[in-house]
Parts: sequence; C-alpha cells; structure tokens
Amino acid sequence: MRYSFIIVIVLYIIAPTFTSGQNLIGDEKEIEKILFNIKTFSEHIMASDYDAIAAAYTEDGKIFPSGRDIIEGREDIRKYWVLPEGRSTKYHKVKPEEIKIIGDEAYDYGYYEGVSLNAQGQESSWKGKYVIVWKKVEGEWKIYLDIWNRI
Amino acid sequence: MRYSFIIVIVLYIIAPTFTSGQNLIGDEKEIEKILFNIKTFSEHIMASDYDAIAAAYTEDGKIFPSGRDIIEGREDIRKYWVLPEGRSTKYHKVKPEEIKIIGDEAYDYGYYEGVSLNAQGQESSWKGKYVIVWKKVEGEWKIYLDIWNRI
Repeated sequence: MRYSFIIVIVLYIIAPTFTSGQNLIGDEKEIEKILFNIKTFSEHIMASDYDAIAAAYTEDGKIFPSGRDIIEGREDIRKYWVLPEGRSTKYHKVKPEEIKIIGDEAYDYGYYEGVSLNAQGQESSWKGKYVIVWKKVEGEWKIYLDIWNRI
Repeated sequence: MRYSFIIVIVLYIIAPTFTSGQNLIGDEKEIEKILFNIKTFSEHIMASDYDAIAAAYTEDGKIFPSGRDIIEGREDIRKYWVLPEGRSTKYHKVKPEEIKIIGDEAYDYGYYEGVSLNAQGQESSWKGKYVIVWKKVEGEWKIYLDIWNRI
C-alpha cells in the first residue's frame, strides 16, 4: 500500500518529462518568443481579436485553409478568420511537437485543438495538426506559412 | 489588324514570365536538385513505386494526411502511400510557388494536382496545396515534413 503510493507520486513527478516530448532546437530566448506567440495567438482566437490575429502574420503571410486556394496577405487573412455573427471560439490550444530555428526562419509542427460555440450556444470540438514557417521580421517572430488539417 | 497581330505575338512571348511566377531563393544548383526531386516524386507516384516514394523522405520524415495523426518514419509513410489493389495514379504534378533554401533546410509551398484510376478504370481528379520542409541529408534533399489539403 505504502509502496504503491510512493510509485504513484514518483510517476506524477517524472510523467511530464515523457509526455511533453517537445523538440525545441535553437536559441532558448528565441524559442521562448515563438512559444509565447503561439500562446497569444490562441488567446487572440478565443477573444475574436481579428486585428491581433492578422498582426501575428507577416505582411505577405499565407494560410492554406482546406477546400480553398492559398490566401495571402494580412487583409485577406483577417477576413478568413472573422467568424459569422454569434459564433465564437471558446477554447483554442496549440501543442508544438518540434520547433527549429534556422537563422531568421523557423519551422514548427504539431497538433491543435479547440471548441467552437455557435449562435445557439452549442459546442463543437475539433482537433488537427499543422506546419508553420515563422519569419523574424524587425526582431519579431511572425507566421509566414500556416497550413493545417483535421484529425 | 497588323498591330493587334503584333500585340498577340508579344504577349505570347512575355506571358510565361508573368504566369510562371515561381519564387526560387537560394543556390541555383541546390534549387535544381529540389525541383528534380519534386518531378521524380510525381513519377514514383504514377509508377506506384512505393520504395522510391518512401526513400524520398528522411528516415524520420513526417506526413500529415487529413483525418489522421501525424505519420512518422519511412516504413509507416510507405504503408500510407500503398494504394488498394487495382488502384493507380494516372497523373500527378506538383507546382511549387516558392522554394527557399536556408542552409541544409528548405521550405517549399505550392499546388498539386492528379488523376486517380479505380479498379473499374474510372478516373477521379483532385487538386490541393502543400507545404514541405526539405532537409539535406548526406548531400541529398529529402522530405522531412509533408502536409497538404484539398482545394
């Protein structure tokens, strides 16, 4: 009884080491900046702050939504993200598997998940995977390519 | 009449400059190698040469097919590409919009299209867009990340 209790405690301590499994390659400070931008991007999505979402991309950023051509430029990217009246995103989380910085560019891939609310207050949850190419523009990491698809 | 004829001729000459619009950034020889690999990848797809398709990826390559988790490693990637008995890909073409080499890595995005043949000989055509991250491994450009979705 006592041993199993200790084992459970030990597993709780070491589990995050195995489960997080993130591969972060590059200058630690720059990686931290990208991780911060990933977190704030989700916050902007949940706040429906479309100006902030658009500003997360480079001026010539490109998104690759399913069923459509590539959308290029902040203005058109902003339009894509605007939700229909009454809709919102209750939850949004991005879980990078690997980020590698190569000079002023970085690739980043992993999983994302979220919960949408429709005008009637009904929830729908979704998840998927993504690849992002980041570019450092005037000292700030911005999204240059953003492609994803559902699981 | 004569002038309009001359205008048509001039447009035919200069049109490819505008319409191809490929953005190829990096050492010309290396870009040529990647373009060659893109072309041969389509040839392997059309030949259902699954060993060659798998060998186009790095040992730890990752593909992001719609509706599934990330698939990692040549063995599992090969399994993914194997078509059901009687099926084949009659036509496959990748049209890169931009390739940028950054040291031993490169990003590449654009459009693809193809025509499938089912066991009854019926054709279905499809197109989509993609982002690839290439890695140079022992002097050869291999696909490290490969994500796409349909248009």
